[in-house]
Amino acid sequence: MSGLSGFPEFLPADRNVELIVLDHLREVFELHGFASIETRAAEPMDTLLRKGEIDKEVYVLRRLQAGEGDSDSGLALHFDLTVPFARYVLENAGKLDFPFRRYQIQKVWRGERPQNGRYREFTQADIDIVAKDELAFHFDVEIAQVMAEALSGLPVPALTLQVSNRKILEGFYLGLGIAEPTTVMPIVDKLDKVPADKIAALLQSDAGLTAEQAKQCLALAEIRSSDGSFVDAVRALGVEHPLLDEGLDELLQVVTGASGADGVEVVADLRIARGLDYYTGTVFETRMEGHEQLGSICSGGRYDQLASDGKNTYPGVGISLGVSRLLVPLVAGGLTADRSVPSAVLVALTDEESRPASLAVAAALRARGIPTEIAASPQKFGKQIRYAERRGIPYVWFPANGDDGDRVRDIRTGDQVDADPATWNPPAEDLKPRIKEQVT
Amino acid sequence: MSGLSGFPEFLPADRNVELIVLDHLREVFELHGFASIETRAAEPMDTLLRKGEIDKEVYVLRRLQAGEGDSDSGLALHFDLTVPFARYVLENAGKLDFPFRRYQIQKVWRGERPQNGRYREFTQADIDIVAKDELAFHFDVEIAQVMAEALSGLPVPALTLQVSNRKILEGFYLGLGIAEPTTVMPIVDKLDKVPADKIAALLQSDAGLTAEQAKQCLALAEIRSSDGSFVDAVRALGVEHPLLDEGLDELLQVVTGASGADGVEVVADLRIARGLDYYTGTVFETRMEGHEQLGSICSGGRYDQLASDGKNTYPGVGISLGVSRLLVPLVAGGLTADRSVPSAVLVALTDEESRPASLAVAAALRARGIPTEIAASPQKFGKQIRYAERRGIPYVWFPANGDDGDRVRDIRTGDQVDADPATWNPPAEDLKPRIKEQVT
Repeated sequence: MSGLSGFPEFLPADRNVELIVLDHLREVFELHGFASIETRAAEPMDTLLRKGEIDKEVYVLRRLQAGEGDSDSGLALHFDLTVPFARYVLENAGKLDFPFRRYQIQKVWRGERPQNGRYREFTQADIDIVAKDELAFHFDVEIAQVMAEALSGLPVPALTLQVSNRKILEGFYLGLGIAEPTTVMPIVDKLDKVPADKIAALLQSDAGLTAEQAKQCLALAEIRSSDGSFVDAVRALGVEHPLLDEGLDELLQVVTGASGADGVEVVADLRIARGLDYYTGTVFETRMEGHEQLGSICSGGRYDQLASDGKNTYPGVGISLGVSRLLVPLVAGGLTADRSVPSAVLVALTDEESRPASLAVAAALRARGIPTEIAASPQKFGKQIRYAERRGIPYVWFPANGDDGDRVRDIRTGDQVDADPATWNPPAEDLKPRIKEQVT
Repeated sequence: MSGLSGFPEFLPADRNVELIVLDHLREVFELHGFASIETRAAEPMDTLLRKGEIDKEVYVLRRLQAGEGDSDSGLALHFDLTVPFARYVLENAGKLDFPFRRYQIQKVWRGERPQNGRYREFTQADIDIVAKDELAFHFDVEIAQVMAEALSGLPVPALTLQVSNRKILEGFYLGLGIAEPTTVMPIVDKLDKVPADKIAALLQSDAGLTAEQAKQCLALAEIRSSDGSFVDAVRALGVEHPLLDEGLDELLQVVTGASGADGVEVVADLRIARGLDYYTGTVFETRMEGHEQLGSICSGGRYDQLASDGKNTYPGVGISLGVSRLLVPLVAGGLTADRSVPSAVLVALTDEESRPASLAVAAALRARGIPTEIAASPQKFGKQIRYAERRGIPYVWFPANGDDGDRVRDIRTGDQVDADPATWNPPAEDLKPRIKEQVT
């Protein structure tokens, strides 16, 4: 981990963990037809700060060579991948095919004070589906299912994908006779930090609810289930509203459709409120077992107005995985890979004169996809083996020499066999770096 | 291509070209045992601007939320990957195994004026080998050979990897009796832009050479060969010096060792001077046929003092490929991929009720590694086929329906066959996006 606070950097073996994770994410996203895009790191300030916001923690760019009179470049580093994606969609709307599925794995930056210990640079992996004018609901189910599958293959502790739906809360509040549901949501959203009786009091004093209405709102927020039983639990509260029905049906489809991925429990959790003024239906959060203090490591939802150019509206549904947020603490806790290099084989060097022979062995192995490096110098073989050991390279190859033919040694077991560089293969699991220690 | 000058962005099909290129580079680098690292985007200003430089075109970062009295954060975006790598090596020297081979594929930024049309954000792919105290010469050969192999598989016009060696020039000038070789190099370096007779005059007026010395310097700069014949050509000039001998021997090894990769001609070219005050031996430049105006798209060399902490010195040899510099003009000229999505198959949808059947087909295909998406809505099959066509998806799958079993159609040929989602495979070349149009 690096010396500059908030800018995490990995050592090579730990970077291999990150590569394993990123490769897995990409594989799942592409299997589901999500196209890769990257957007530029910088956006005009007015794209980043909409509606007069000026409280965002962003890094503004200034040209060092700017003249005296020049102001800032008007550019700042993006702080998420959603805002740049919305801009990309509008800018290229005529050239994209909708519905457009995209994944985007990039760094983002936040202009935090160095003292506060928060990340100032981190990697996110987002998937979104965006359409023109209208986006069918089944895409909400797809987004949840794809991310659950992606999360399922990660070398991390058990995950819980919590799903809710704004329509349930809004419909329930309306069904209770509350005229302004939006005054209720921010108060209920504090349930994580504030005791329930305090919330009940606030709902009455600040949102003008009756004691009974407040009790019902809290009862709704208590409901969670990893199957469809949450529907009956909500019904049992006796509140009715068409929007509530719609929300329950949607949430049931998402929970049912996304369940079944190993290591990822999908639950309907009606306490999840996640910026409900922003999302318009499905919302997601994700907790990692034993790391609850990280908050949600993977969040998102449906926004019926991801982007709009005044003429057309582009609704979207998406979810964003905080790759650094997930990995940096796990790596600090010991998660690493079994080697610091990609090499599966180190070809030993008998003497400087026989370097061409060692090069030929390496070329033969590489031609069949086996990552191979050659010992830096013709030290004693014991030293060359330790060279491999330090890097976690599992095999050392001894080129033919005099009466001895080519031999390869698994340095973990000491087993040594005769081998032909044109045909020998390591077991598939030794071909690439693997996770060494699974942290739980 | 995007609307913000200097910040190129790709449409999805063009991004697939970039992914094909980046995947290929990574594969070659890893086959040769180069470890991946990434460094943070920002470095302290004093790391970026060494020795009192203040003329670098860098982007300085300022926190939008900085208070009145706060100055800039002291950070700026890196403008290459060499300076951050040197800092990373020093910072982690105790935890790295030397010699350390690393590749690094990342964006870099230059704080250029928007008007000048230069890139302000672009991707570079660097490989370097760095050692502690001493780095054997054979690593120069390895770096050239690995990059030649990496360049060889790219979907680009013919490339020429031009190699020279500072020791040849310095030894030759010393052998000519020139006391200060460093005064000669910057003048000879102008040969690309200034006529030879003018250079000869400058060498006499500004560097104090005799007419004969100037003539010899120009004769040396004319020498180029893609085999070992440059050695004889230099010898024929009749100049002798131990440093010249050493340089000729080194250059011969690099040219011989790196030759043989398809599409990449390796030539000894004694006009290449490339910041010779910086490099200490081997130097590289690369030209692309028909795109000479781009200048060198892949450059580097040997620097005996990549990094130093006062106690230890870390010599290195490396080469840096300008991925954006190479691809952006080619994509603008028509280089693209055969599809805008990763999907090899679109599963058609008979009606909304049979969506689960289409999902099951897709799951069966994905389970065997076939990227698959499902039609967004149950339009007429003709429309669903055009949906696939627009995205370049080669196959449309029609799930079993009534008496009809599962069928799959190659929409490029119209050929349709009965198929089982548990066993059918597309030809390997259809599994992933491919380069559609090779620009020459």
